[in-house]
Amino acid sequence: MTADTVADKTDPTRFAAAIGELNAAFGNRVVTSRAVREQHGNTVTWIANQAPDAVVYPQSTEDVQQIVRICAKHNMPIIPFGTGSSLEGHVNAPQGGVSIDFRDMNKLVTVHAEDLDCVVQPGITRKELNEQLRDSGLFFPIDPGANASLGGMAATRASGTNAVRYGTMKDNVLTMKVVLANGEVIETARRARKTSAGYDLTRLMIGSEGTLGIITELTLKLAGIPEAIAGGRCPFPSVEAACNATIMTIQSGIPVARIELLDAMQVRALNLGSKMGLPETTLLLMEFHGTDASVKEQSERFGEIAAEFGGGPFVWTAQAEERTRLWEARHNAAFSNFQLRPGAAMVATDVCVPISRLADCVTQTQADIAESRILAPIVGHVGDGNFHLTMLIDMNDPDEVKRAEALSERLVKRALSMDGTSTGEHGVGQGKTKYMAIEHGAAGVAAMRAIKQALDPQNILNPGKMLPAG
Amino acid sequence: MTADTVADKTDPTRFAAAIGELNAAFGNRVVTSRAVREQHGNTVTWIANQAPDAVVYPQSTEDVQQIVRICAKHNMPIIPFGTGSSLEGHVNAPQGGVSIDFRDMNKLVTVHAEDLDCVVQPGITRKELNEQLRDSGLFFPIDPGANASLGGMAATRASGTNAVRYGTMKDNVLTMKVVLANGEVIETARRARKTSAGYDLTRLMIGSEGTLGIITELTLKLAGIPEAIAGGRCPFPSVEAACNATIMTIQSGIPVARIELLDAMQVRALNLGSKMGLPETTLLLMEFHGTDASVKEQSERFGEIAAEFGGGPFVWTAQAEERTRLWEARHNAAFSNFQLRPGAAMVATDVCVPISRLADCVTQTQADIAESRILAPIVGHVGDGNFHLTMLIDMNDPDEVKRAEALSERLVKRALSMDGTSTGEHGVGQGKTKYMAIEHGAAGVAAMRAIKQALDPQNILNPGKMLPAG
Repeated sequence: MTADTVADKTDPTRFAAAIGELNAAFGNRVVTSRAVREQHGNTVTWIANQAPDAVVYPQSTEDVQQIVRICAKHNMPIIPFGTGSSLEGHVNAPQGGVSIDFRDMNKLVTVHAEDLDCVVQPGITRKELNEQLRDSGLFFPIDPGANASLGGMAATRASGTNAVRYGTMKDNVLTMKVVLANGEVIETARRARKTSAGYDLTRLMIGSEGTLGIITELTLKLAGIPEAIAGGRCPFPSVEAACNATIMTIQSGIPVARIELLDAMQVRALNLGSKMGLPETTLLLMEFHGTDASVKEQSERFGEIAAEFGGGPFVWTAQAEERTRLWEARHNAAFSNFQLRPGAAMVATDVCVPISRLADCVTQTQADIAESRILAPIVGHVGDGNFHLTMLIDMNDPDEVKRAEALSERLVKRALSMDGTSTGEHGVGQGKTKYMAIEHGAAGVAAMRAIKQALDPQNILNPGKMLPAG
Repeated sequence: MTADTVADKTDPTRFAAAIGELNAAFGNRVVTSRAVREQHGNTVTWIANQAPDAVVYPQSTEDVQQIVRICAKHNMPIIPFGTGSSLEGHVNAPQGGVSIDFRDMNKLVTVHAEDLDCVVQPGITRKELNEQLRDSGLFFPIDPGANASLGGMAATRASGTNAVRYGTMKDNVLTMKVVLANGEVIETARRARKTSAGYDLTRLMIGSEGTLGIITELTLKLAGIPEAIAGGRCPFPSVEAACNATIMTIQSGIPVARIELLDAMQVRALNLGSKMGLPETTLLLMEFHGTDASVKEQSERFGEIAAEFGGGPFVWTAQAEERTRLWEARHNAAFSNFQLRPGAAMVATDVCVPISRLADCVTQTQADIAESRILAPIVGHVGDGNFHLTMLIDMNDPDEVKRAEALSERLVKRALSMDGTSTGEHGVGQGKTKYMAIEHGAAGVAAMRAIKQALDPQNILNPGKMLPAG
């Protein structure tokens, strides 16, 4: 392809020409109906839906290469789409374009049990994957809550409740097949557990939100299903006490698998949503993985630490049903929140700070929530210093929307002032591009922009995301 | 700085002009004596020493920025230098240039005990760091054997014996201050434990061997010094049995801290060097970290697994002195090897394969060593599938050198054919650039080259390393 065959970006007919070529190549796997297009725009935040011009369903890496080549020729944006559960407008099409929906690329390709890894297509969801892995005694530990696709989880550097023990997506992908903007396909690394051979293209692609390449296959690290799991809940007199107990737990080397903070309002929502009958105070939900002996030891040691900080009693169990009920309630936290204010819109945001600053950041944010007159429960992956604000907003009240936006912006700036980040796990998308220059400085953004320009000179890969307009 | 003020690369006077400016700025912190320059070229492999034209000793990030700006203006290569313990010619100056020696930037800047992290300058070595951390109850777990600098360890994505439990440098750096080729300084991330805000510049810089930027500060994750450590040694009837026991150990979820394979020849060298009196057969050296109860449980379970594969007895202890003696001997393996052939040159190389292929790869390599008539003990970080060949060569025998080179090349190709990597932890430097196209394919190398070009358009940062000549 030579430069002079590429459509000019000012040519208004270029999208129609691209869709024509896609139709010729993929037939009824190209859909342009309004309903389907809108399902592929953003739906789960206050960012308006910006539907793509077409949706295409590839069945192979080669299909994706062909789509990219057609789009490159016509200068048409490409937006990779998994399940659409991202929260910051990642799948919107602000400049129009083609949404690549990985619905049909959802296979578990191979399990290498001896190597504790597996190869998957990007459209498989984490629940489907773990269902199919069950007989192998292995599981994929990253759990962002939503039943997201693995491709989307890699693209947004997802993490969630297990990250304190198992890491995030950046720690659990060995290699990926990625189609670049020029239509070439790369394998970002080998399947070996570690390497020093070249730039870390795997980690560069993870969290790049589809702006540097399109993931068409992933090799994932797996973990053995623990012999024993124990878990439970522990009330604390304050956020500070819960955070200090968390710090001590981690400093003590207790290999906690999950350590989740719920503030009193979040507990209230859980009680309303899941009839849990939990004490409506600051709560830590815990989970420990290991042998029967080690989860008992971990649980007892955590109970002692909690008591030191005025918390307790730590009610724990190694019984599956009871634990499952607690964690299902936790996972349904977002939906339970609607019980606090039926009919409200839910707007979620997250930040992450060094754990020593977590109590301060949460406490200041609670005060800010009260002053802002916004209903916003807090839930946190506190082992990582990461927490979420789930604002319940009447979107028809412009003053309330404005107060919520201001609250959200102060939260980000508060986190940044504490050496934290504007997002621990939700990603940048459209919603947080405005904070990138504060977070990374002009030189950092310029470096990212240079990389983007090097790998996608036409800016066709998910344009308008991640980096602020230059 | 505009383009027309940059010296042309064909101008033979440009290095003298650069050194003149460096002298004016840094006085006696610029050294051009032949002895010092040669100390900063490569010394520890069969790659010839290519000394830089000058060595400069910065004292701050600002000094490094000034050095980079002077070098950029005169189109003079820059080679970052830690302790010079890298193995693939990373610190050579094939195109001449200035070596930046971080000897004077060797401070532990801050310890954030609650956050389990610390801030260091790049010149501090891992032993110095752990010495200074001791009172905090924390330690930095990455141990590549050599007393390398932390800047060098990050630049080469070092790992070593503890990686199976604690990960590699890519997993243990939170953020770095990096001076780019344009003289700007970036902070690659925030100090928060995780983030989804932007491209992963931290991981892009780790393992980039000074070709994308110069590390001037690092924030490192720390681990708590384990309450209890147990360790020991376990003989096996074959490499295959030892590898299978390793796989089973890891599959069982035993959180082994170190699991090291020594082949019979390596054990013989240890016995000669350290008077260990070890059984001269395939050996696994083990270490477990945890509580008294958990290291006992781990040790016993490992002993049972070893027995299943015909290994044992597993002789282990929680006593510090005995363990230390074993691990010191392991760390001195390289030097012990000289006892096998006094006066020989030692040439080390490493590869890494999926663990299911490790026994095959090691066994085939042992046969190849025998056929090649080369003396080459094998030691492996087998939990990661990573192993080293240490060839003891008479460099005055051209036929032997040729046989060793051919052996080394076959080793890399064998690993690559098993979905492994040409280097698990030594890095590419000059020695392994020739394998990059095989490992990453033309499209992968082109992507890396595009990134290099974007961040260092003049190609002044450690040129001639990592990527093959274009």
